[in-house]
Amino acid sequence: MANFIEPRILKGFRDFLPPAEIARRNLIERIEASFRSYGFVPIDTPALEYAEILLGKGGGETEKQIYRFNDNGGRDVALRFDLTVPFARFLAEHRGELSLPFKRYHIAKVWRGENTQRGRYREFTQCDFDIVGSDSPAADFEVLLIMRNTLRAIGAGELTIRVNHRGLFNRFLARLGVSEQSVEILRTVDKLTKIGREETLCQLSDLSGPDKAGAILGFIEAKGSFEETLETISNAVGGDAPESERLRILRRFMVDTGTADSFVLDPSITRGLDYYTGIVYETFLNELPGIGSVCSGGRYDNLAGLYSKEQVSGVGSSIGLDRLIAALEFLGKLAAPPSYTQAVIACVHEAEAGLYQALAGKFRDAGIPCEVFLEEGKLTRQFILAEKKGARWLVIPGNEPLTGPLTLRDLGKRENREGLSWEEAAALINTP
Amino acid sequence: MANFIEPRILKGFRDFLPPAEIARRNLIERIEASFRSYGFVPIDTPALEYAEILLGKGGGETEKQIYRFNDNGGRDVALRFDLTVPFARFLAEHRGELSLPFKRYHIAKVWRGENTQRGRYREFTQCDFDIVGSDSPAADFEVLLIMRNTLRAIGAGELTIRVNHRGLFNRFLARLGVSEQSVEILRTVDKLTKIGREETLCQLSDLSGPDKAGAILGFIEAKGSFEETLETISNAVGGDAPESERLRILRRFMVDTGTADSFVLDPSITRGLDYYTGIVYETFLNELPGIGSVCSGGRYDNLAGLYSKEQVSGVGSSIGLDRLIAALEFLGKLAAPPSYTQAVIACVHEAEAGLYQALAGKFRDAGIPCEVFLEEGKLTRQFILAEKKGARWLVIPGNEPLTGPLTLRDLGKRENREGLSWEEAAALINTP
Repeated sequence: MANFIEPRILKGFRDFLPPAEIARRNLIERIEASFRSYGFVPIDTPALEYAEILLGKGGGETEKQIYRFNDNGGRDVALRFDLTVPFARFLAEHRGELSLPFKRYHIAKVWRGENTQRGRYREFTQCDFDIVGSDSPAADFEVLLIMRNTLRAIGAGELTIRVNHRGLFNRFLARLGVSEQSVEILRTVDKLTKIGREETLCQLSDLSGPDKAGAILGFIEAKGSFEETLETISNAVGGDAPESERLRILRRFMVDTGTADSFVLDPSITRGLDYYTGIVYETFLNELPGIGSVCSGGRYDNLAGLYSKEQVSGVGSSIGLDRLIAALEFLGKLAAPPSYTQAVIACVHEAEAGLYQALAGKFRDAGIPCEVFLEEGKLTRQFILAEKKGARWLVIPGNEPLTGPLTLRDLGKRENREGLSWEEAAALINTP
Repeated sequence: MANFIEPRILKGFRDFLPPAEIARRNLIERIEASFRSYGFVPIDTPALEYAEILLGKGGGETEKQIYRFNDNGGRDVALRFDLTVPFARFLAEHRGELSLPFKRYHIAKVWRGENTQRGRYREFTQCDFDIVGSDSPAADFEVLLIMRNTLRAIGAGELTIRVNHRGLFNRFLARLGVSEQSVEILRTVDKLTKIGREETLCQLSDLSGPDKAGAILGFIEAKGSFEETLETISNAVGGDAPESERLRILRRFMVDTGTADSFVLDPSITRGLDYYTGIVYETFLNELPGIGSVCSGGRYDNLAGLYSKEQVSGVGSSIGLDRLIAALEFLGKLAAPPSYTQAVIACVHEAEAGLYQALAGKFRDAGIPCEVFLEEGKLTRQFILAEKKGARWLVIPGNEPLTGPLTLRDLGKRENREGLSWEEAAALINTP
């Protein structure tokens, strides 16, 4: 007996069969169409880069999760684990070829050797979009607006974007005299929903003492309308500051675009990552907030700072496509057809396959995706197969497939229309 | 002074800046649209797989070129080097979930540590499409037709698809009594255009002696119309055979679809790879044949044989996207806009960015991709920037950006139209 290699894939990796891949493609295409409608342009970068580039100063969680190895030429290389670091390197390398402000998107796979027990994948897709080279509040707002409008355009329903300004929080920490612990405090606050109020208070107390921990918690738990919360936290930092002024401008933009209802000012949003310096935000689906943020980001002052002395500030966001798909699937909103086929040409005689293709070509020219069945078989079986493909129509060629009359079967209504010309059939199929 | 990491990428890898990436995306989207119009559905598989799966019986050139390493869990893994082997594994693993015949496409990156001196890339994109589970000549022909029509649809111009039947050549070799050397002979013949006639004859002589080498060269050099060549090589194998009958059927299909001019029967086409058993083909652009085949493939009897005892035959083809792009670029046929932006909203007052976005939203709803400029600046400078983005129109908002009259500038004609409502402006922009 032959010795077969067991067909299997690595844990944390996935095959996408046609129905799932069509749903994914649909979603990506709609996200792309939205990005493009705002004038964003695509870029691409290598999946594999020098490990030194991707790890930067390195260390920490990233280093443990990265796929890193020596290539055949002995180079220390790694698979990208996000699209932000390659973009930083891209900016430093191609600065002279880009005109600023530069609005780009990048939809691509990234790889992390994460613990798959938590339902995480080791290969997943990110959809990043950024505006670099503008410090304007208009840029902040455009990214917020694109997040909102893109997620609504793909049918994710109502959503809440929780916005904050990292600089305002830092100002508050400075006022408390705990600036030196700000990175640790930010990271602790970022885990609030995960670890709970008590544990957060406890960890903050370790960092800054119980009184200040209480004050910090009071700051991040400020409640009310956007305007009220802004008032509260502005007062907490001692009155007006450039950061609260920027939030005020952003609020006006929200009102001007009629999108104010989608935004909440939430001082507990900090995003753990160190490179954010301005506004930060997370996005939750109103029908499924528990799945976590499906789109997050913020403003950074100096993204490419590791690779270049030129400072490039920007603001951007990233849609976690896999989490979004899981949410849409759970909500029953991931509708996708089983194929792209609208009409099928039945196979009456295999020897006429050339004529069937010529006939199908006419339907394709009329804008109708049209599959040709390749093998003879009972028509009733061909009905079933065509239905399984999600086709609405079956064309049954006559004795002169290309020039003579044909029969058009409506697979939904289970009705035949006989004696049609191909033009008549195409017109019926194209009738909405 | 700070110590920067030099921003650079690995040799053989590429960044795609927006103009190149838009051109690539355009091409991929048109190729996909063509595949879909024939009822083909997409799949996706992991970039990283067990090395055992990808290498199969292993050895040879592939093993030297593959990116292979041990992951953090000590697994022997590798990056895929083509889309055929993962498809074979996919078929064996998911056979029960697919209904045959199965028509799929897969457009994705693959990685090979090839010698970059020959102008090869180490990361490149393949566009594969296959029909598995049908041995019908109608399946062979559909793949041939899709190759032809897809390449024409993307503007590659007239092309010649050189077709052969590997089984007919094997029959000829059996008749000569050199079947045992058939693999080596096929590989030698496959290199004919690369190494030249003399060297081919010399290598064939080493394999089968000078007389038979001459006969083999005579066979593969048969010339004439499709029909004449078919006659010649049919006679050379001793008369009618199932393989020549299949070529005859395919020829009728070509005539029936009015595509006969695109196909040549070329007995020298063998495709070096061992797994082909039926028809094989290569595709050359008439305007640039020297760049080599831009789309090749053939029929295989048992693609998933390494992983499963179930035999799945099929026929497929692969477009080498990078070579195709190089060819189109050389021919000046890779037209792509610098961005997707059709209209730009000028920034008159930064404080009105919210109203500009609301105005832009109206244009987007009217189907017009519309970028909003984020920063104030002289209008003449905004004209230039908008032109650089390839936008045809610039919208200059008035005192009441959302409700009042606006000015529409035609950047092509350098003309302003003043006092328009946004509806009038949108109608002008949408006029073909």
